[in-house]
Amino acid sequence: MKKIILASKSIDRSEILKRAGIPFEKFVTNINEEKYKTKFSNPADLVKETAKAKMLCAKNELKKNKIDAIIIAADTIVIIGREIIGKAHNEEEAYKILKKLMGKSHKLITGIAITEVQNSKIIVDTDTTIVEFLHLSDEEIWQYIKSNEWKERAGAYSIRDKASMFISKINGSSSNVIGLPMHKIYKILRTEFGLNLFQFK
Amino acid sequence: MKKIILASKSIDRSEILKRAGIPFEKFVTNINEEKYKTKFSNPADLVKETAKAKMLCAKNELKKNKIDAIIIAADTIVIIGREIIGKAHNEEEAYKILKKLMGKSHKLITGIAITEVQNSKIIVDTDTTIVEFLHLSDEEIWQYIKSNEWKERAGAYSIRDKASMFISKINGSSSNVIGLPMHKIYKILRTEFGLNLFQFK
Repeated sequence: MKKIILASKSIDRSEILKRAGIPFEKFVTNINEEKYKTKFSNPADLVKETAKAKMLCAKNELKKNKIDAIIIAADTIVIIGREIIGKAHNEEEAYKILKKLMGKSHKLITGIAITEVQNSKIIVDTDTTIVEFLHLSDEEIWQYIKSNEWKERAGAYSIRDKASMFISKINGSSSNVIGLPMHKIYKILRTEFGLNLFQFK
Repeated sequence: MKKIILASKSIDRSEILKRAGIPFEKFVTNINEEKYKTKFSNPADLVKETAKAKMLCAKNELKKNKIDAIIIAADTIVIIGREIIGKAHNEEEAYKILKKLMGKSHKLITGIAITEVQNSKIIVDTDTTIVEFLHLSDEEIWQYIKSNEWKERAGAYSIRDKASMFISKINGSSSNVIGLPMHKIYKILRTEFGLNLFQFK
């Protein structure tokens, strides 16, 4: 059985794979995400290039150690209007982001990059979900922030946790909102790398 | 602080409330759901009446013991074409349900019923989400069934687990697909029962 490597430090992405019953190992890359943000103004290009960079970083490292594996990397951002929103660095930033998103729809885009260590094939794709928020009062936004759910999450929210209370609607893949568009990953692995993810118990 | 009672034995509904940080107790009702299925042919009426029956069963019991609490009950079904689909009772039934849903869109409807033990107010509502499945082969459907995810779930799937790989799109609330439309529950509790669910840490 080929090893699967998730080149991401996101606990949300790890949880999706675990719940889908997929055995994997985590590989933490130290890509400077901020660098990409200044380089690519097109959201789809940004997430694709960031995911690709994470994937290549893992690939180079695993090649050195002669480990064969399938590598999955991803990067997620939120778009409102023409603004690209990543993660908040502190509570004040989380407040500003959430305030902007309340009572409106935004786009959530994930870029994925998949390869095999001993294979030149690289598949890069994106998935977009539209997410609609209820309007929350400032008091409620601050109560939400105090739960710390905003930390390490694009758009400062987590759909599976407290944010379920203010997400009125999504249009698109829900696993994409968590950071891994599983239906696309399943299809790419099956058609491009001959791996059936349903074989795992 | 008022107690919250979840009148449902669903592990999925319990998990949503837990992840939203809401303290609650479970109350298992023994409503004969099959009886309602023959009584109501309209899907919205069916889930509303079943949820209401669960809620009333809990209310009567808690009244006897003089316990004051907010009670939340729910019932979920899947609709494809004009057919109402509940839970599968065995693997063969799970296969037939999943085979019907593959490669198509279906509706998932949850009915919710909310009250307070010492309050005559009863709020009943429904929420509908459209869920789109990829097409899976028979082999993949059977591999999925062997994971046992179909058990105790309307439509024989669980969006947060392995089914994330064949759900290509949803349109509506994602917590509704898990069995509790959290944005509606949050709004009803805030406006009708004066309870702010964001107050919990």
